[in-house]
Amino acid sequence: MKLVIGDKNYSSWSMRPWVLMTHFGIPFEEVLIELGEPETKASILAFSASGKVPCLVTDDGLAVWDTLAIAETLAERFPQHALWPRDADARARARSVSAEMHSSFTDLRSTMPMAIRTSKPGAGATPGTLADIARIDALWNACLDASGGPFLFGEFSIADAMYAPVVMRFNSYAPALSPKAAAYAARMSAEPAVAAWIEAARKETHRIEHDEPDA
Amino acid sequence: MKLVIGDKNYSSWSMRPWVLMTHFGIPFEEVLIELGEPETKASILAFSASGKVPCLVTDDGLAVWDTLAIAETLAERFPQHALWPRDADARARARSVSAEMHSSFTDLRSTMPMAIRTSKPGAGATPGTLADIARIDALWNACLDASGGPFLFGEFSIADAMYAPVVMRFNSYAPALSPKAAAYAARMSAEPAVAAWIEAARKETHRIEHDEPDA
Ligand SMILES: N[C@@H](CCC(=O)N[C@@H](CS)C(=O)NCC(=O)O)C(=O)O
Ligand SMILES: N[C@@H](CCC(=O)N[C@@H](CS)C(=O)NCC(=O)O)C(=O)O
Repeated sequence: MKLVIGDKNYSSWSMRPWVLMTHFGIPFEEVLIELGEPETKASILAFSASGKVPCLVTDDGLAVWDTLAIAETLAERFPQHALWPRDADARARARSVSAEMHSSFTDLRSTMPMAIRTSKPGAGATPGTLADIARIDALWNACLDASGGPFLFGEFSIADAMYAPVVMRFNSYAPALSPKAAAYAARMSAEPAVAAWIEAARKETHRIEHDEPDA
Repeated sequence: MKLVIGDKNYSSWSMRPWVLMTHFGIPFEEVLIELGEPETKASILAFSASGKVPCLVTDDGLAVWDTLAIAETLAERFPQHALWPRDADARARARSVSAEMHSSFTDLRSTMPMAIRTSKPGAGATPGTLADIARIDALWNACLDASGGPFLFGEFSIADAMYAPVVMRFNSYAPALSPKAAAYAARMSAEPAVAAWIEAARKETHRIEHDEPDA
């Protein structure tokens, strides 16, 4: 399988399936397309009609695009791995928090763009973004209290992969977090697949002015 | 099971699981909360910590929120119904177009808000919205060509439910569509579960100024 992604420093959506597949040892060939360049759109369209990354291309040439569709398809095709929690009720909750991540937190996503190399404590903390962060903090606490941790639903699952880029934003912009949320963010940053993505992002040299204004 | 929804005239996200469950004859009790009122948030929070509708509450009290999580959970719990297409590759594509609907088309969603009672041909047609409509038209055509119709993946599935509110917007704002997309929109409007939702919406009297400015 091929996984088509954007820059590791910037592409928050790409990070999710990459970390998920890497964590579970699902083999894939990475195709990295630099975002924000004149030829970016055409390069992505060669793989996905949506014009966006990530896109998974299966061995028989089927394009599966959009993080949640990729995650569900992988969960279905690799039942030997617990990509979703094995318990049905936990799985329903994990799907709820993952879908909420997929469609919400637009303030956080716009005022604290992912740029892993960036360190700007305090930047981007608008009221809307702080409300998004409060909701995420509460949601992480509720999941960790119910599961006992170390990850949102016990073992690492799709839900953690969905929130991995949020952890990257918290590392860069350092908003205040509850102790439990801060500890979860630290555990996530040290998780081997997440750490491997961070390390690769730090080595990249391609820069997008809009996402990293005064780098 | 309880399905907590907003006004049928306005709540595009609520329409999706309601139409899906109604189409497949999955029994549920409807709880309708009028949106945009001072007490709306508190009423929703009594069911879902996300503060948003729709929310499905299972018989044992589990809250499942967000359309896509509700859809996946129903697909898993009612395997006797083909909520997703039975073919694995078609299912992966159906998940891709459903997830794209879930996270995209923000211009369309903001300039052509769903208000089923509204008829305003030509309104809201900004360049960004027209680009969203062009993508949806192409996507519907590709699905219908591949499946042969009458619905996106042959029989009615979650993918059609996801696009049902887009059909409502097209009925209200009447943008230009390809013949195949226009015929699909007409078939969708006549589908019994969709028609039942429309009929109920037309009978509502509660009004939200922001979504229906000069009604
Ligand atoms: N809803 C999509 C979002 C994908 C998305 O927005 N990807 C961005 C990069 S993180 C992209 O492809 N941008 C390139 C462009 O729009 O040209 C998903 O979940 O996969
Ligand atoms: N991503 C959510 C979106 C839900 C949503 O935005 N619902 C709106 C109504 S259509 C809502 O609950 N608004 C009420 C509020 O924000 O107070 C889903 O797919 O279910």
